Amino acid sequence: MPSLSQKERQDRLVELFHGAPIAKTTGMRLHYNNAGQAVFEMPYNAGFDHALHQVHGGLIATMIDNAGWFTVAPRFEHWIATVEFSTRLHEPVEKETLISSGRIIRLGKRLASCEVEVKTPQGRLIATGAGTFTVTSVPFA
Amino acid sequence: MPSLSQKERQDRLVELFHGAPIAKTTGMRLHYNNAGQAVFEMPYNAGFDHALHQVHGGLIATMIDNAGWFTVAPRFEHWIATVEFSTRLHEPVEKETLISSGRIIRLGKRLASCEVEVKTPQGRLIATGAGTFTVTSVPFA
Amino acid sequence: MPSLSQKERQDRLVELFHGAPIAKTTGMRLHYNNAGQAVFEMPYNAGFDHALHQVHGGLIATMIDNAGWFTVAPRFEHWIATVEFSTRLHEPVEKETLISSGRIIRLGKRLASCEVEVKTPQGRLIATGAGTFTVTSVPFA
Amino acid sequence: MPSLSQKERQDRLVELFHGAPIAKTTGMRLHYNNAGQAVFEMPYNAGFDHALHQVHGGLIATMIDNAGWFTVAPRFEHWIATVEFSTRLHEPVEKETLISSGRIIRLGKRLASCEVEVKTPQGRLIATGAGTFTVTSVPFA
Repeated sequence: MPSLSQKERQDRLVELFHGAPIAKTTGMRLHYNNAGQAVFEMPYNAGFDHALHQVHGGLIATMIDNAGWFTVAPRFEHWIATVEFSTRLHEPVEKETLISSGRIIRLGKRLASCEVEVKTPQGRLIATGAGTFTVTSVPFA
Repeated sequence: MPSLSQKERQDRLVELFHGAPIAKTTGMRLHYNNAGQAVFEMPYNAGFDHALHQVHGGLIATMIDNAGWFTVAPRFEHWIATVEFSTRLHEPVEKETLISSGRIIRLGKRLASCEVEVKTPQGRLIATGAGTFTVTSVPFA
Repeated sequence: MPSLSQKERQDRLVELFHGAPIAKTTGMRLHYNNAGQAVFEMPYNAGFDHALHQVHGGLIATMIDNAGWFTVAPRFEHWIATVEFSTRLHEPVEKETLISSGRIIRLGKRLASCEVEVKTPQGRLIATGAGTFTVTSVPFA
Repeated sequence: MPSLSQKERQDRLVELFHGAPIAKTTGMRLHYNNAGQAVFEMPYNAGFDHALHQVHGGLIATMIDNAGWFTVAPRFEHWIATVEFSTRLHEPVEKETLISSGRIIRLGKRLASCEVEVKTPQGRLIATGAGTFTVTSVPFA
């Protein structure tokens, strides 16, 4: 059986993500841009505000983990797992759509590194992060 | 007006957290133990599974951010803000309650550092993290 | 007394760095490029090899800390201090010159964030990192 | 050929480290304590001061990388490599001996995680860090 192309894997991952509980709970939507970056968009959802009425940092971390994982995943023929990631919160954000996108830093045989930005639709930089992903032995199918 | 004691601030923070949208959406509960550590417990919530049926790393990051922030916050007479935090995912977790707790590493005048563990009720270590928090000029009231 | 311009601060920092013990011990040289990035160059120095004959990760971390600190420092009228930084080692490196350069991510009033790349002169990416810097109350003079 | 015990690997690593250029250049010394933690001690060396006469953060990062790597390495039958590590600088330090020690957080089959503290001999906490290490396919021999 021939292995899937990167584009085919992207298509499957988009479908997979939109069927996941986390997508339904948060309202996040995924697409891949022409540069192969996973781009997540999340319309403002009051349910993820913290007590002081801003978007919770944990939701921003979720967007970083997602953008990193989904940017790296279609580059490999096996599933990947997040090893660790950082979340740097540059500005508070209130009642705005958030957009995260990943950028490959390095693809090794067994490990990959990706940087992520989280912005508002107007381009205000809310957060940045970076992550390490490990390639498992489970084939992407 | 005399300032609040650390214990009084803990009580207010517990009340504040349980009234926050994020608490209702995720089902997390907060208490402080005798060592002054913020402890968050989150019963399994299928809505935060990722597509491969494990708990999403972003939810674990949320528990790290929370435990760090709430462990540090009652030590200061002004509000604090999360500057950055790391999330290290050691084992996948499926359909289990998660418990996060913070441990103060250093309290400075304007910055604080805290480490966090995330475990199952049986003590399996799921994730660790560490964060930096900045003390704002807004009085805790 | 009028405060110094960013360019004047750069010039003073270059002079300051080249007089520092760490500069003499490691052989690192600093300049600022037209984009205001601090660029450090370190010719191969066998004294910083680890036991397996590659450049020690700690030296690469030193180049990350330096590029971050010196990129951020001239943007403020007070001295800054490194709060924390990450070091991501993408490839081993042996017997090569290393070049690190910083890129401002965000300048706040009291905190700044900077990303750093470490490359060989041929452009091979050896490491990346990111750091948080705090603005002290000590005037830059 | 029977594989080496953890203790035998520790002994070889101590010998290996003390023969490395970085050990000679910095003056760091390694031993393992009864808990199997790698402990590095570095007498004050003026050559690693930065321009403002404190110990350079990069040297502290070197002590973190070392303590993490050497705490993890004897637990595996293959060589390990540092993937990434964090450096959190809690207090400046001047003209003092530094001691770093590692603590295993998790040992997986292919990845390990370790936390590190850097203190003065009097126990003042200077820095903390954490790292990820990958197990290579090269046998420890």
